Amino acid sequence: MAAVAPTRFAVLVSGEGTNLQALLDARDRGALGPATIACVASNRPGARALSRARAAGVPAAEVDHRAHPSREAFEDALLAAIGAGSPGGPDGVVLAGFMRVLTPRFLAAFPGAVVNTHPSLLPAFPGVAAVEQALGYGTRLAGCTVHFVDAGVDAGPIIAQRAVPVFDDDDAASLHARIQAEEHVLLPAIVRALAEGRISCEGRRVVVARGAGHADQFL
Amino acid sequence: MAAVAPTRFAVLVSGEGTNLQALLDARDRGALGPATIACVASNRPGARALSRARAAGVPAAEVDHRAHPSREAFEDALLAAIGAGSPGGPDGVVLAGFMRVLTPRFLAAFPGAVVNTHPSLLPAFPGVAAVEQALGYGTRLAGCTVHFVDAGVDAGPIIAQRAVPVFDDDDAASLHARIQAEEHVLLPAIVRALAEGRISCEGRRVVVARGAGHADQFL
Repeated sequence: MAAVAPTRFAVLVSGEGTNLQALLDARDRGALGPATIACVASNRPGARALSRARAAGVPAAEVDHRAHPSREAFEDALLAAIGAGSPGGPDGVVLAGFMRVLTPRFLAAFPGAVVNTHPSLLPAFPGVAAVEQALGYGTRLAGCTVHFVDAGVDAGPIIAQRAVPVFDDDDAASLHARIQAEEHVLLPAIVRALAEGRISCEGRRVVVARGAGHADQFL
Repeated sequence: MAAVAPTRFAVLVSGEGTNLQALLDARDRGALGPATIACVASNRPGARALSRARAAGVPAAEVDHRAHPSREAFEDALLAAIGAGSPGGPDGVVLAGFMRVLTPRFLAAFPGAVVNTHPSLLPAFPGVAAVEQALGYGTRLAGCTVHFVDAGVDAGPIIAQRAVPVFDDDDAASLHARIQAEEHVLLPAIVRALAEGRISCEGRRVVVARGAGHADQFL
């Protein structure tokens, strides 16, 4: 896959939206390069992330997956809500705490341009409750992974990862907060690199070229 | 499991013995605390690790697993070769590149006192060729894990981990060398902590207490 350079991102969310907020904050301080946050959609009505989007002047839609009879119907509604395929519509998607698995049909609308952030050092601890999984296993390093999305669960090619220590007195909340602090640095940097056409992917091997004129804050 | 404090370690090896060398070097500079390297045994005749042991004045035995009709017979020979159960015999075991899986019967001879070093951030990439597995997956962080050994493959409670970046131009040799540099720091520090009775294990959760008077070089 050659480098693609999506610049108009739809951000899909399900909950608090702290990663969305990190993207919006990066945008506000000019740290997203050519990337823009075109719209936000949540599969959970009333998600806090929606009010964060609206407060930042970004169109935000609710597309309740429970209101649709099939995954395909839900994804059609989601594609329509974010304006996929329409002139000026998004050409990239960021999954930021989005708790639904997308089908290849949805992904085909944004080839090579859907990324996810996951609170573990993948391939360890994919799926839900990754932080709880890591604590239960007793891992001593935790972290986050930003990766391209494929049809698997947290299984696509890895773009970047950051590690954090697990402390003896950690609970899920304290460890998750430490991981999120890293995600909030990593995700905007990756979205910027994507928009600047600096990320290429050959099979499972991803290369992120260094940016000119600004320090990459990851690896 | 309360903290145990083994001080006389048998080191089991299969190949080059660079982790063994790191232990011997740590011993020579007084960095192993009360831990001693009592003996070394290899399941592969002629392993380089054996000559490293002998050069350091440590008794070294060959116990060829292929020369024994069963895993039990091999392990009996191994236990005999390292002097397990004899007065002054080893009370702890370090697996340092040892490529055989030990049975619960062997492990029962050293309760809570068998540790292994593995060149991945477990639970990612257990088993053989961990570095090649990580490169093939396209992970961006690799590393090493020192863990207590149980009957699973690289599955016991994790004591400590260190991460290293994967560079775009890495091959297995360059990445493995970077990981080994971390193992060579981590493994002697863990062996010292074990001997000083600073490591305790509750279920899968391991706690390493800080050492007094010397900085721990891990986490």
